[in-house]
Amino acid sequence: MSRVAIIGAGAVGCYYGARLAEAGHEVHFVLRREYDAVAARGLHVHSKDGDFHLARPLIARSAAEVGPVDWVLCALKATALEEARELLAPCVGSGTRVLALMNGLGVEERFADWFGPARIFGGLAFTCINRGEPGHVHHLDYGAVTLGHLEDDAAELDAAGALWTGARVETSTAPSLLAARWQKLCWNIPFNGLAVTAGGITTDVILASPALRAATEATMREVVAAGNADLGARGQQARLDPDSVVAAMMSATDAMAAYSPSTMIDFVEGQPMEVEAIFGEPLRRAQALGVPVPHIALLTAQMRALDARRGD
Amino acid sequence: MSRVAIIGAGAVGCYYGARLAEAGHEVHFVLRREYDAVAARGLHVHSKDGDFHLARPLIARSAAEVGPVDWVLCALKATALEEARELLAPCVGSGTRVLALMNGLGVEERFADWFGPARIFGGLAFTCINRGEPGHVHHLDYGAVTLGHLEDDAAELDAAGALWTGARVETSTAPSLLAARWQKLCWNIPFNGLAVTAGGITTDVILASPALRAATEATMREVVAAGNADLGARGQQARLDPDSVVAAMMSATDAMAAYSPSTMIDFVEGQPMEVEAIFGEPLRRAQALGVPVPHIALLTAQMRALDARRGD
Repeated sequence: MSRVAIIGAGAVGCYYGARLAEAGHEVHFVLRREYDAVAARGLHVHSKDGDFHLARPLIARSAAEVGPVDWVLCALKATALEEARELLAPCVGSGTRVLALMNGLGVEERFADWFGPARIFGGLAFTCINRGEPGHVHHLDYGAVTLGHLEDDAAELDAAGALWTGARVETSTAPSLLAARWQKLCWNIPFNGLAVTAGGITTDVILASPALRAATEATMREVVAAGNADLGARGQQARLDPDSVVAAMMSATDAMAAYSPSTMIDFVEGQPMEVEAIFGEPLRRAQALGVPVPHIALLTAQMRALDARRGD
Repeated sequence: MSRVAIIGAGAVGCYYGARLAEAGHEVHFVLRREYDAVAARGLHVHSKDGDFHLARPLIARSAAEVGPVDWVLCALKATALEEARELLAPCVGSGTRVLALMNGLGVEERFADWFGPARIFGGLAFTCINRGEPGHVHHLDYGAVTLGHLEDDAAELDAAGALWTGARVETSTAPSLLAARWQKLCWNIPFNGLAVTAGGITTDVILASPALRAATEATMREVVAAGNADLGARGQQARLDPDSVVAAMMSATDAMAAYSPSTMIDFVEGQPMEVEAIFGEPLRRAQALGVPVPHIALLTAQMRALDARRGD
């Protein structure tokens, strides 16, 4: 069993942390706003796979109270990326591994700047988890996590997989973390972007409009082109196939119920949106490599403007 | 002096109709909601060029009360285009000319379907005019009108110019109405589109963002390309020069105070937006001619979705 610290214990962090605790790991939740509620009544997980309750989870008000662990699971919003170094550091000892369960591009590279690349992993969560009242998490749908290692080290990937053995979370491993990040962006850039810029709409509304559908597919192809150029520039062999990506993502999304992308929820709730991680960094890489990405550029410009107007 | 009917007597129709009345023409305003207010207190124009007041304007509740005139000035919103035939018909006699003082592409062609092309003119207003309380119009800035004839007939253009002689409106004539329509779209598509999709922002906010500025220019170049293809396909010699258009429009807009495009005002007020005239018809023509217009396509898709959500 591993000693685990959950940093950024919002809905996603609490859910996956609770699954690891349920599997027997020693999981420390670093809490701020929700500390008192969880101290008093524990952590309630309302899951489509069955509810469960951690009556006495290990909780702390700061990472320093926890100290070095085997695994740091960081589920901060990408908008808080630059705060992560200070938040994580007290838990990172010589043998610590760090799993960034966060959205977008460039997160693991930033973690590597601070803690070295060999210990850095990325987790791509395909899920729908919302916060309820303090101490309550609602796991509504999906839940699978794809695990990757920043240096794509096979033995390290095995170690990441081993952490989740016995936990009630469907996991898989990605031979190329970077390819997996770009593949997920093929979904997030068009769907998160259009869901916001078209007025706060769900995926079914996007798919029902021929014009938005066409924009979705055209945007996906730009993300594939940018991703392949980025993979090539970084010496990776992995490539995304545009037709397969478009076909698979469109048919999977057609089969989904109306879904609210996380950025759309942030938009509607007036919260900061993960614009730079999901849009800005992919756009910067595409432009640096000379890949034409008009849809990504326009969506990024709109998202930045909309994000700047939060609270107006 | 001419006998003139104003159909669609909102802020723009009332303003230009009042200017023609001020110049001595027999101007009949066809009013619905504002009839009683104007009957009781006349028409008040609050203008940056000096206020004036028509104490007893000629008003009617329907075009049938007015009957055939020399000039119909139609200032309906483009969203009401299909209602225009019935609204205009009672005023259109054998010698009547029709001036469409409306936004977007395809309006004059539709009028020609109904009334024949020889009598159809387009007016492109570069202005900022808002409705005030009933019977009051606020002319805030600009005000020039470019006049064109659907068949670009020089003698007819002279007749249109003559109508405005003596009126306190700066007018010019366009040798190609179609080129003038496309040139105006070079401004309206990016600025109206981005002002809405980036959250209801004014032109100065667009220009202050490098990403939105780049999107504006890229969109303008697509509109120029689509316009030139459309002009060529219709056997016209006129062409727009992309560099000149971009340079002129960007510097003119940089020099303007914060401006709210009409579509942005509609968006913020929850009114129907002129999506098909300003975005949909240009996009259809571009796509039919095989011109790549990713920015126009994406903006159109977003605008349609936002327009469909009015009242949600």
